[in-house]
Amino acid sequence: MATDEYSIPVGCFGTPGSYSYRAMMGHFDGKPITPTYYGQFADLVQAVADGTVRYGVLPIENSSTGGITEVYDLIHKYDCRIVGERYLKVEHHLLAYGDTKLEDIRTVYSHPQGLAQCRKYLTKHADWTVCPYYSTSQSAQFVQKERRHDIAAIANSTAADMYGLTILERDVNDNPTNFTRFFVIAPHSEEPGLADKITLVLTVHHAPGALYHVLGHFFYNDMNMTHLESRPIEGRPFEYFFHIDVMGSMKDPGVVRTLQALERTCKYFKILGNYPSDKEGISHETRAHW
Amino acid sequence: MATDEYSIPVGCFGTPGSYSYRAMMGHFDGKPITPTYYGQFADLVQAVADGTVRYGVLPIENSSTGGITEVYDLIHKYDCRIVGERYLKVEHHLLAYGDTKLEDIRTVYSHPQGLAQCRKYLTKHADWTVCPYYSTSQSAQFVQKERRHDIAAIANSTAADMYGLTILERDVNDNPTNFTRFFVIAPHSEEPGLADKITLVLTVHHAPGALYHVLGHFFYNDMNMTHLESRPIEGRPFEYFFHIDVMGSMKDPGVVRTLQALERTCKYFKILGNYPSDKEGISHETRAHW
Repeated sequence: MATDEYSIPVGCFGTPGSYSYRAMMGHFDGKPITPTYYGQFADLVQAVADGTVRYGVLPIENSSTGGITEVYDLIHKYDCRIVGERYLKVEHHLLAYGDTKLEDIRTVYSHPQGLAQCRKYLTKHADWTVCPYYSTSQSAQFVQKERRHDIAAIANSTAADMYGLTILERDVNDNPTNFTRFFVIAPHSEEPGLADKITLVLTVHHAPGALYHVLGHFFYNDMNMTHLESRPIEGRPFEYFFHIDVMGSMKDPGVVRTLQALERTCKYFKILGNYPSDKEGISHETRAHW
Repeated sequence: MATDEYSIPVGCFGTPGSYSYRAMMGHFDGKPITPTYYGQFADLVQAVADGTVRYGVLPIENSSTGGITEVYDLIHKYDCRIVGERYLKVEHHLLAYGDTKLEDIRTVYSHPQGLAQCRKYLTKHADWTVCPYYSTSQSAQFVQKERRHDIAAIANSTAADMYGLTILERDVNDNPTNFTRFFVIAPHSEEPGLADKITLVLTVHHAPGALYHVLGHFFYNDMNMTHLESRPIEGRPFEYFFHIDVMGSMKDPGVVRTLQALERTCKYFKILGNYPSDKEGISHETRAHW
């Protein structure tokens, strides 16, 4: 890893070999970076906010489980901005040490989410003990450190390479089309440039039709909404934030006008970022527009 | 537990002492039931569908993390119906064996979600090893079985009673206002009676304004929407189901008309249940209406 003076300090969720690590490598695409790894979302977002690192890379949404409320809340709390996104296909493999054979395995380690994503595969091996671990990549690291033949990890091929493990079985995840979405965050917004996607968070007044009228702003101004998710507000049970993605640029005066008008009708309104959408990770046709 | 011939066979998620167990006891409120416990959502919903049990009780939404996609998907897949709901306050305590003292503890066990809900408390005890376990109630059971003084569990007071553990510290969850919502499901819908809440699942055509027009049906027909959540569809990345709750009864012809009109505009539309809302668990004022 380059650590010279031109290197960009980047905070990355998880450990080397994690899905966030892959997203980081993809986003910075050969630019010199100095990564620091964080095991907790809160520590990472705080490090971005206080300038310890210049960017942070962390998961925000999984196509099988939906958005990660905690990450939205933290970006919000620490007043960070989304400056990029990245989509990564979930590809879990069964990893083991050296010449371990399938029949040697007694226990499989992975992150609870990783285990959940391989439920069908694990059901076929009902004699294995399934053990929740801190992360997919850390479970790979654990298997490498233990050097035992009765354990295996579920993680991606980057983790296999990184920890020198053997891929015993490929693509053990139930769903071959699962994606995870990652945000690249910074303490301030960046010059939009090619930015074409806007992430908003808002709350509405408790009144019939409140959300209907919010969506009307996008509909009547021909703005394409690609994501809407209601998430509970911590400490105010069953009050909700709406996380909304719309296509558009803050360089477009019509977009700015629409958002200003919308803001006036909301109880709370904040633009979390305007950034270039990831056009490689997932094809345009599979994205929603409502 | 009553097991006579009048006893209702009920499938319950988790183990005795779990939050689902509490929800079950609350819902059936003294009626004779014979519970069977299921560790996997899929096994429980299947048991309801094939008649092994007459009802199932399982969590559907947590006020800090949102809806549990898998449970919605299973209710859907096995064509079950929601016949009741229950709201329960999350109250986690630190449980230990016998006369264990706080300073004896080295390792704390709980479900990853339980640990996440006590993050602030656990940060104050940075010397403890935090160990993810299958469920909050099973972590309590584990501590009882081990009879050791260096371990503790995070679980509720029902689990403490059930496994004879001591409550070392009360209310260790970060957020005192967290609720979990549970569904009671059955293989068929039941005579609505006092039913006043409807849960729908639908998909819209990929067209600008599609969701806006869905909400218009509720707005113009004065139906109070209390919940809206977009959830990814398994296997179709970034296509979404919308899970919607509205207040109303299928005995009301106006409600039926509105839903029929809505159905005609949707790509997919299904009523998952019409059931009496839980008026005890959470006050009406704290519920959303948009």
